[in-house]
Amino acid sequence: MESIGRRRWAIAEGYIPANSHGPSPQMTSHETVCLLNASDRDARVRITVFYSDREPAGPYHVLVPGRRTRHIRFNNLNDPEPIPHDTDFASLIESDIPIVVQHTRLDSRQAENALLSTIAFAGDM
Amino acid sequence: MESIGRRRWAIAEGYIPANSHGPSPQMTSHETVCLLNASDRDARVRITVFYSDREPAGPYHVLVPGRRTRHIRFNNLNDPEPIPHDTDFASLIESDIPIVVQHTRLDSRQAENALLSTIAFAGDM
Amino acid sequence: MESIGRRRWAIAEGYIPANSHGPSPQMTSHETVCLLNASDRDARVRITVFYSDREPAGPYHVLVPGRRTRHIRFNNLNDPEPIPHDTDFASLIESDIPIVVQHTRLDSRQAENALLSTIAFAGDM
Amino acid sequence: MESIGRRRWAIAEGYIPANSHGPSPQMTSHETVCLLNASDRDARVRITVFYSDREPAGPYHVLVPGRRTRHIRFNNLNDPEPIPHDTDFASLIESDIPIVVQHTRLDSRQAENALLSTIAFAGDM
Repeated sequence: MESIGRRRWAIAEGYIPANSHGPSPQMTSHETVCLLNASDRDARVRITVFYSDREPAGPYHVLVPGRRTRHIRFNNLNDPEPIPHDTDFASLIESDIPIVVQHTRLDSRQAENALLSTIAFAGDM
Repeated sequence: MESIGRRRWAIAEGYIPANSHGPSPQMTSHETVCLLNASDRDARVRITVFYSDREPAGPYHVLVPGRRTRHIRFNNLNDPEPIPHDTDFASLIESDIPIVVQHTRLDSRQAENALLSTIAFAGDM
Repeated sequence: MESIGRRRWAIAEGYIPANSHGPSPQMTSHETVCLLNASDRDARVRITVFYSDREPAGPYHVLVPGRRTRHIRFNNLNDPEPIPHDTDFASLIESDIPIVVQHTRLDSRQAENALLSTIAFAGDM
Repeated sequence: MESIGRRRWAIAEGYIPANSHGPSPQMTSHETVCLLNASDRDARVRITVFYSDREPAGPYHVLVPGRRTRHIRFNNLNDPEPIPHDTDFASLIESDIPIVVQHTRLDSRQAENALLSTIAFAGDM
C-alpha cells in the first residue's frame, strides 16, 4: 500500500492529568500519540519529550509495523524514564519512513470526562 | 463550483466507545468522518481501516455527490465488515477527486458527553 | 501589519445542536467560524453552506475589517436563509484577501457542556 | 537538535471564560498557547492580540529557551495590558526562529470541565 505522511512531527501541547475518575484503563486520564503506518514496511519511531525547565528526555523507541496503527499513551512510556504527571511537556516524533501523527487527551479529573484531539504539526520532510 | 481539498487523507486516531448515555441516535457514542465535496462532480471515496494487531479492513465505499457533504459514522460501516467497539483503529480516505475530510467523536460513556474534532491529515496530492 | 492566511478555506463538519442548558447567549449550543484578518485592509468574506440532501445555501456575506477578528455563530446567519438545527452541514469560506479560519462548537444539550475546535482546511491559494 | 516549525502562526479563536469551578490553578478556566522550541537557540516570541471592535494589543514578549516548551496562559499576559474575559479575540504569534504552536482551552464554567485543542495555522515562512 502506498505510504502517506511525513517523517518529522511535533506536538506542542502535553499534559497528563494527575488523577482520574471511572474504570481503568478506559477512563484513566491519559495523553495519547496515535501513529499510523500505512506503508508495507515497519516504521522505527523515536519520541523526544521536551519540558519547560530541564533538558529533553528520550528518545523513547516505538516500532509501528507495516499496515498497522499504534496509539501510545505517554503514561506508559518508561524507558529511559517515566513522564511526570501534572507537568507541561511537548514532543517531537521522528520516523525513518512517512507516518501520520495525531494527539488526543482524555481528562477524567472530574466526574465527567473531557476530550481533545488535533493532528500534529507536520514538518517539511 | 471550484473544488477544494485533496485526494488522500489520513486519520491516525479512531475509537468507538463501547457504551452510551442519552437518546439515540444523537447522543450515541460515535466516531465520524465528515466529507465535503464542493465540486460539481460525484466523488467516489474508499476508506481503509487499520488496526494494531491485524491486517487492514476494507475498502469501504462511500459516494459523495457533487455539492454535498456526508458525515459518516464509523459505527455504521458494515460492508465488508463492522468495526469493533472499544478498539484502537486508524483510517485512510482516498477519493477520485479532491474532497475535504474532518474527524469528530462524541463520547457519551459517562452521563455528560465529550467531543473532539480535528481536520484530517492531507496527503500531498 | 503583514497579512497571514489563505483565501479559500473549508470546514467539513457542521452541526448546530437542537437544544441547550445554561444561560444565554454564552452557554447556548453553537457552531462558530472564527475569522482573523491580520492585514490592514477589510476582508470581504463569502460563506457557502453545504448539506447532505439539497443544493448549497448562500453565499452569506461577512465583512471583517482590517486588524480585527470576528467569531460568527452559524446560528445567527439568516440571510439568505437560516441554517436548520440538528442537521449535518459543511462550509466553504472564501475571502478576497488572506485570512485565518478556525471552527469551534459548544454543545450544551446535556447539563455539562462539551467543546471542540480545529483549524479549518486551507486551500492552495 | 534540528529545529522544526515555522516563524509565523495564527490562532483565530480566543476566549477566556469568565468563571470557573474546581481547584486553582489546574481547573481555572484558561486559554493557552503552547510553544515548542526544539532548536538549540533561544526563541524570541511576540504575540499580538486582535479584537472585534478595537485596535490590536501587544506585542506581548515571551522567551522560549532552546530545547524547551512553554505553555502560556493568555489569562497571565499583563504587559502591556491584561486580556479581558468573556471577550472574543484572536492572536498572531511571531518568532525569530522556527517554533511549533498549539492552542488549548479548559472551560470549567460548569461543574464538569470541557477541553478543546488544535494546532495553530502555520504561515508560509
